[in-house]
Amino acid sequence: MPVGVFDSGLGGLCALKELHKLLPDTELVYFGDTGRTPYGTRSPQTIMKYASQDAAFLMSRGVSAILVACGTVSTVALNALKISLPVPVYGVVSAASREAACFTKNGKIGVMGTGATIGSGVFEHELKLINGELEVTSVACPLLVPVVEYGFAEDEIAYLSVKKYLDPIIDAGADTVILGCTHFPILKNMMIKAAPHITFIDSGAAAAREIASAFSDGEGNGAIHCYVSDTPANFNKTAKVFLGEDFDFDVERVDIEKY
Amino acid sequence: MPVGVFDSGLGGLCALKELHKLLPDTELVYFGDTGRTPYGTRSPQTIMKYASQDAAFLMSRGVSAILVACGTVSTVALNALKISLPVPVYGVVSAASREAACFTKNGKIGVMGTGATIGSGVFEHELKLINGELEVTSVACPLLVPVVEYGFAEDEIAYLSVKKYLDPIIDAGADTVILGCTHFPILKNMMIKAAPHITFIDSGAAAAREIASAFSDGEGNGAIHCYVSDTPANFNKTAKVFLGEDFDFDVERVDIEKY
Repeated sequence: MPVGVFDSGLGGLCALKELHKLLPDTELVYFGDTGRTPYGTRSPQTIMKYASQDAAFLMSRGVSAILVACGTVSTVALNALKISLPVPVYGVVSAASREAACFTKNGKIGVMGTGATIGSGVFEHELKLINGELEVTSVACPLLVPVVEYGFAEDEIAYLSVKKYLDPIIDAGADTVILGCTHFPILKNMMIKAAPHITFIDSGAAAAREIASAFSDGEGNGAIHCYVSDTPANFNKTAKVFLGEDFDFDVERVDIEKY
Repeated sequence: MPVGVFDSGLGGLCALKELHKLLPDTELVYFGDTGRTPYGTRSPQTIMKYASQDAAFLMSRGVSAILVACGTVSTVALNALKISLPVPVYGVVSAASREAACFTKNGKIGVMGTGATIGSGVFEHELKLINGELEVTSVACPLLVPVVEYGFAEDEIAYLSVKKYLDPIIDAGADTVILGCTHFPILKNMMIKAAPHITFIDSGAAAAREIASAFSDGEGNGAIHCYVSDTPANFNKTAKVFLGEDFDFDVERVDIEKY
C-alpha cells in the first residue's frame, strides 16, 4: 500500500525525495495544495479545515500512512489528524526536534518557520519535553516562502532576508537551527553563508527518516503519483527545483474542496 | 444602496479609501479573500471560480455596483463577471490605462503586476486600443505582494526587489508606469527612489475615480463594512497599513466557499 505525503504547496517534495531514496520500491502519493497555498499566514481554523481535506484526499487514494510534510499543518493540526484518521500520521516536529536535541553541543537551538508554526510554540514545547534545559529562539520567517517560490533563492534578496531572520538566532548563540518549513532547505546555502558555524536541520527530511525507520520497503514499483489543487501547468518546472532533474512522476489536478 | 469592493486580500483597501474620499456618504462593503490570497500566482480557472464567489457574496449584501480592486481578477475574470452580474462591474485596467495614456509624454509605458495579470496581456491590449503607437513593457512582480504583506515595505529588501523588477522598464525608456496590482502603491516611495523620473499610476485609485464619476454620492451614513474569509484577528493592524489611522469600519468573517 502506498504512503501519502501532503504539503500546502510544493515544499514537501523535498521530504518526498528523501522518502523515495529510503523506500525506493514503495509507491508514493503526493498532494500539494497549490490552489490555496500558503497556509502559514492563515488562522488555525482555516489551516485545520484545509488539512482535513488534504488528508481525506490521500485516504481516498488508499494510503497506509501519511507524512505531513508541512511545518504549519504539523504544528497546528497534527493531533486532530491523528485522532480522526485510521492510519499513522507523521509530522515534521518530533523528528526534527529529536535530531536538533542530538546535534546541539551548547544546548541553544533556533527554530525558523512560518507565522503559524512559530505562533503555535510547538517546536519549543517539543524541544523542552526532550530536554527542559534547552534554550530555544524561535523566529517567524514568512518572506522566505515567496522568496523561494518566485525564483529569488540565489539572489541577494534571499541572503538579506535569511540574514534578517537569522540575526536574533545568531545573537542568542544557537549552534543548531531547525528549518521548520519545508521550503527553507532550498535556502540552505544562503543560511550557511550567513551563519557558517550553525548546523541546519531539514525538518521534512527528518520526518521522512522517521517514517522510513518504522516501515519496511513496499513491494511496489516505486511509482510516484502527484496531485495538485491548481492546474499542473507549471508543476514540472517548480518540482525540479525541489526534486532535481532525474525524477519520474505523473501529475494530475484534484478538486480539493470536494473532500 | 451600497457600493461593493473586493480584492484577493487587503490591497484593495487603498481603492476603498479613495472611493470613500470621493463618495463620503455612500455606504461601502468590502470583501478581502484573506483565506485564499494571493490570486496572482494561480491559474485562470481557479481565479475565475474565486472571483465569482467573491462577487456573489457582495451581491448578497445588496450592492448596486462592484469595484474589482484586484489587478489579477480585473485582467482574468472581469468580462465573465460583467456578463453574469446584474450590476455594473468596474475593474482597474481601463481606468489606469486611460490615465497612463494621458500622462505619458514619450509614448513609453511600463506595467507592473502579478504573474496572472502580466500573463494575460490585458493592460497591453487595452493601452494599444487607446493608442496603437504606445510602446508597452510589462513585468510580472510576484515578490512585491509578500514584501508588502510581511512588513518589508520600508526595508532594503523592498528597494532591491522593486529595482530588480523596474530595471527592464527603465531600460525600455518608459516615463509612466501602471501599478497593476493594488499592493504596489504601498511601495511607491521605493519606486520613486529607484526611478525618480517616472510617473506611477495607482490602478485601484484610478478605478475608484472612474466609479465616483459615474455615481452621485449616496444618502447613507458613509459606513464601511469589511468582510474577510480568514479570521479578522489581524485585520485592524494590516488595514491600517493601507487605510491610515483615522478610519472607522467594522469587520466580520464570511465563509466564502458557500457562495
